[in-house]
Amino acid sequence: MKVGIIGAGSIGLLFASYISRVFEVAIYTRTAKQAQEINKNGIILRKGEEEKVTMVKAQPFSLWQGTEDVTIIAVKQYQLPSIIEKINLLSVMPDHFLFLQNGMGHLKLLEEIGANHLYVGSIEHGALKENSYTVSHNGNGVTNVAVFKGDTITLQQFSSAFTREFPMSFQEDFYPMLEKKLIVNAVINPLTALLQVKNGVLIANPFYYQAVRNIFAEISFILNLEQSDEYLQLVIDICKNTADNRSSMLKDMEANRLTEVDAILGYLLDEARRQEKQAPQISNLYHFIKGNELEREEVL
Amino acid sequence: MKVGIIGAGSIGLLFASYISRVFEVAIYTRTAKQAQEINKNGIILRKGEEEKVTMVKAQPFSLWQGTEDVTIIAVKQYQLPSIIEKINLLSVMPDHFLFLQNGMGHLKLLEEIGANHLYVGSIEHGALKENSYTVSHNGNGVTNVAVFKGDTITLQQFSSAFTREFPMSFQEDFYPMLEKKLIVNAVINPLTALLQVKNGVLIANPFYYQAVRNIFAEISFILNLEQSDEYLQLVIDICKNTADNRSSMLKDMEANRLTEVDAILGYLLDEARRQEKQAPQISNLYHFIKGNELEREEVL
Repeated sequence: MKVGIIGAGSIGLLFASYISRVFEVAIYTRTAKQAQEINKNGIILRKGEEEKVTMVKAQPFSLWQGTEDVTIIAVKQYQLPSIIEKINLLSVMPDHFLFLQNGMGHLKLLEEIGANHLYVGSIEHGALKENSYTVSHNGNGVTNVAVFKGDTITLQQFSSAFTREFPMSFQEDFYPMLEKKLIVNAVINPLTALLQVKNGVLIANPFYYQAVRNIFAEISFILNLEQSDEYLQLVIDICKNTADNRSSMLKDMEANRLTEVDAILGYLLDEARRQEKQAPQISNLYHFIKGNELEREEVL
Repeated sequence: MKVGIIGAGSIGLLFASYISRVFEVAIYTRTAKQAQEINKNGIILRKGEEEKVTMVKAQPFSLWQGTEDVTIIAVKQYQLPSIIEKINLLSVMPDHFLFLQNGMGHLKLLEEIGANHLYVGSIEHGALKENSYTVSHNGNGVTNVAVFKGDTITLQQFSSAFTREFPMSFQEDFYPMLEKKLIVNAVINPLTALLQVKNGVLIANPFYYQAVRNIFAEISFILNLEQSDEYLQLVIDICKNTADNRSSMLKDMEANRLTEVDAILGYLLDEARRQEKQAPQISNLYHFIKGNELEREEVL
């Protein structure tokens, strides 16, 4: 099986490194410069004290033809529209895509793609891109994958090829899989970014914890959660287990990058609007983060 | 008329300097050291290029006897309970008090005071304490005063003694006078502190401006405002006119001091509770600011 990976950020590099131990991988970068650097140095994967170099064929995305058997889309949600435009312009439509975006804002974009088999994934790994060809694998986790549209066979074959080293877990239903991560991200990411604190502070500080509970209640109302308490406990557990971590949105804000707020809170606001529900808390958080993006000089 | 001023922060020093041009003033400080410094150096008032030194009698508050004709309470709302305790322990209760606290959280505390005449004020001046005996008068404004309980005569006499140099405006009704400032403070202070921006950014940034409008709507609902649009326009005008200013709450946060969030948002939450209204936005802002106070090392 040949695997194409579009996007060479922390997740693209992480997946390229691990997947190339099992399948033949081609990675597609935004700039020609990054492709050159990966072709020259390989992808360096750091994990604890260990360092592993893997030679992976890299090309700028502009040269992508979609000839691999499975194409993994590892870009941010806000970069997806331009990728989908390119997909739909290909002379031969690839058969299998796996989308790894956070949140659920990308689901409506997937409807526009003419391919037969669309898969989605939810990543629990912690990864940090150190330079254009080096990624640090900080947090071990699972990649959950599920069918969004089409057959399960190829996804099952693909996911079962991985071992405990980089586990992939096949899920029957994509919706609860993505929803679970969305809830966690929707509570932890905007609050840690806004308040500029590590994950653990959200539950250690009783005032912040009260805000966490209030905001969670609004999310639960929007998503019509049935086992609301279990999801709140999941949020609390993740704050505890990652107490010393800075969330991806806080890091994006500190590094002057765009955040994934549209994919996460934007999706919840769309859902609230669709159901004609009030969402005053999510609306404020959304505007605070979007306003902050606007105040900063964008470097992306 | 003899005037006592309790509290020698920016407002206490500002009032002591101007009032001593008209009446005999004694100022009461928290520490003996500050009283010594004021007695030695006088109070220095800076305004633009000018500097004026006024000799004012200063004593630590522990020596206060309440012998002046009018006593001005110029401490923060959160310092009020200990002041009121001392007032109620005096052997002879002073007759006239003027309270200059922000917000409306202090009104319920005034009920506890046994004095006959209680006045409240709302200050539009901008003042910055530069050191223990120096205050900079940055923004010209009016001091609005009104009767909370008792007769109007002394307050009218007192307020009419001041000229355009330091105008006092007698108001018929204390409630709208304080409410107006509360609304402005409740929108501008917590948001600028949370988002760490100057006042003008709240209306220049369209995302922040949307949050301003949403939060204002909740305040308007809690306070049952009838001329809601006029008050929103007032908030917008003040953001424009003070575009380059940092709000007092932002400055408190940056200087690691307690904020006046209880006097401002705490009052609104009490009002919402009393009327059994939901206030999810004000509640979140309140918890964000209180949580931030808790995260900082308190120096007061």
